[in-house]
Formats: sequence, C-alpha cells, structure tokens
Amino acid sequence: MHIRSLRESDIEPLCAMMNEIASRGEAFVYDAPFTPREMEAYLAGFPAQFVAEVDGRIVGGYVLRPNLPGRGAHIANAAYMVAGSARGLGVGRRLGEHSLVEAKLRGFTALQFNAVVASNAPAVTLWKRLGFQIIGTVPRGFHHADGQFHDLHIMHRSL
Amino acid sequence: MHIRSLRESDIEPLCAMMNEIASRGEAFVYDAPFTPREMEAYLAGFPAQFVAEVDGRIVGGYVLRPNLPGRGAHIANAAYMVAGSARGLGVGRRLGEHSLVEAKLRGFTALQFNAVVASNAPAVTLWKRLGFQIIGTVPRGFHHADGQFHDLHIMHRSL
Repeated sequence: MHIRSLRESDIEPLCAMMNEIASRGEAFVYDAPFTPREMEAYLAGFPAQFVAEVDGRIVGGYVLRPNLPGRGAHIANAAYMVAGSARGLGVGRRLGEHSLVEAKLRGFTALQFNAVVASNAPAVTLWKRLGFQIIGTVPRGFHHADGQFHDLHIMHRSL
Repeated sequence: MHIRSLRESDIEPLCAMMNEIASRGEAFVYDAPFTPREMEAYLAGFPAQFVAEVDGRIVGGYVLRPNLPGRGAHIANAAYMVAGSARGLGVGRRLGEHSLVEAKLRGFTALQFNAVVASNAPAVTLWKRLGFQIIGTVPRGFHHADGQFHDLHIMHRSL
C-alpha cells in the first residue's frame, strides 16, 4: 500500500467511494450522493489531500485542513474514507498514521474530529489506538440509517 | 430593543461590529478584518439572520444554520455579536433567547456552539443561564490576543 498526493484522476474513484460509504448512513453525515464536480469542490476545501493505492487501485484517502479559521487554525481537522472492498486491510490505520505525521509537519499542534459516530466501533477503536481521546459527546447528533439518533464523539490528539 | 430580520443596509454596521470584536482577539476566531463583501459572504452561509435594533441603531445580531449537513442537520449552530457600546444592556441575552425560539420553530432539536472561549466568562455564564451545558472542551484551542492558548468549550442545549 502506497499513500500519495491526490491527482485529478483520483476524483472519480474517490467520489464513488464517498457515495458508497454515505449510502450506508452509518458514518458520514452526507446523505445525498456527490457528483464528481461536487466531490471536487468538497476536496478543494482541504489544502492537503492524499490517497492510498494498492496495485494502481485507490482503496482509500483522507483530507486535512485547519479545524477553524484564524485563532483556531493551529488545530487540524481531517476526514478519511476506506473502500468497502478494502476493509480490514489496515488502510484506515495507515491513513490515520500518515495524517498525524502530515499534520505535525504542517505545524498543527493537534488533530480534532468533530463528528465520529459513537456506534461506529471500528472508527472509535482505531482513533483511540492512535492516541485520540473523546473530549466531548454530542447527544443524538447523528441521524443514523437505522432511524435512530446516535451520539457523535468529538475526538482530539495533541501532536 | 427590537429584533428583526437582517436587511442589506445592516451589512456595513454589522461588519464594523464584527471587526471591532475580532480586533480584541478574545472571543472570535477571525483574526483579520472582513470587508463588507466578505461579511456578506459570511452571513450568506447562514439561512437565518437577525439584528437587534435600538432607536434605529444596530446594537447586535446573530445568524443560525445547521451545525452539520445531512445526517447532522437537525442540530443548529449560531453566532452572535453585540456592539462594544451596547455591552451590559442584555442584548446578548435577548439574542440568545430569540435564537432558541427561532431554532425550535425551524425544527432543530438542539443548538450547539463549537468554539466558546473558556476565558470569555460573560459568554459562558450567559449560555449556562440559558440552559446550555458544556459537553466538551478543546484544550488550547484558541490563540488569544494575550499570546496564550485558551481552551474552547463546546456548548449544547436541547430544544
């Protein structure tokens, strides 16, 4: 597995991956499919964009940005995705580790996630293993595909 | 004091108010002044926009939007400002109360703030009085004008 900077030709496969994950309604807040053009606009909101590649195939990716502007811009925020077909291969872990190094290289002092679905145990477990702490929980912040409202964790790790 | 919907002619006074507050570096993350055009773009990101008026003069305002898209869009987020010259007159409290009613009318189930500067005691006290709870704290999330990094509270109130 190789992690490299995003290229324009990655947008379509990433868009398909995004829509596949969003359609499950378990982890991402987006509830309508992105067109490749909307995906490009979404990605453009993040100054750092990486993909994970195996044998020329995109199996995941992440994007990184300041969590807040100005006086809050020293803390990073990131979003990750892993293709359903590549689950269990450690792609998320590799992307997470890469993002921690990348965020530190860029001068961020911490990495923060604002909306980790509390019932998404693989994600919560991964982030805890990588040193993140749950610093807050939004009660019933996520309208899950099961029809229930699940809690959202805010997770944070100093760099 | 009268709270009403924003008009185009309010953008310039609101912009001056925003820049006055931001220049103190104690409460808002924005660290560079907005032009009126940038202020207009900022406000346009919020579907609900209100100002507080006293004798035809704008003394404060707030804007309201979903805190997250899609599956997180049932929780509102808002931003408030009060003119320095109108401090201590209860403008913030009136705006806060108005926003709770407005958010409930619009079908939101809760109101959440993501970045309340922990050292901004008047704000933290006001939100607690209005029923908000601190549901999380981002350590050193705000680069205050005093040169130190202050904590940021995430505050939440069910509607």
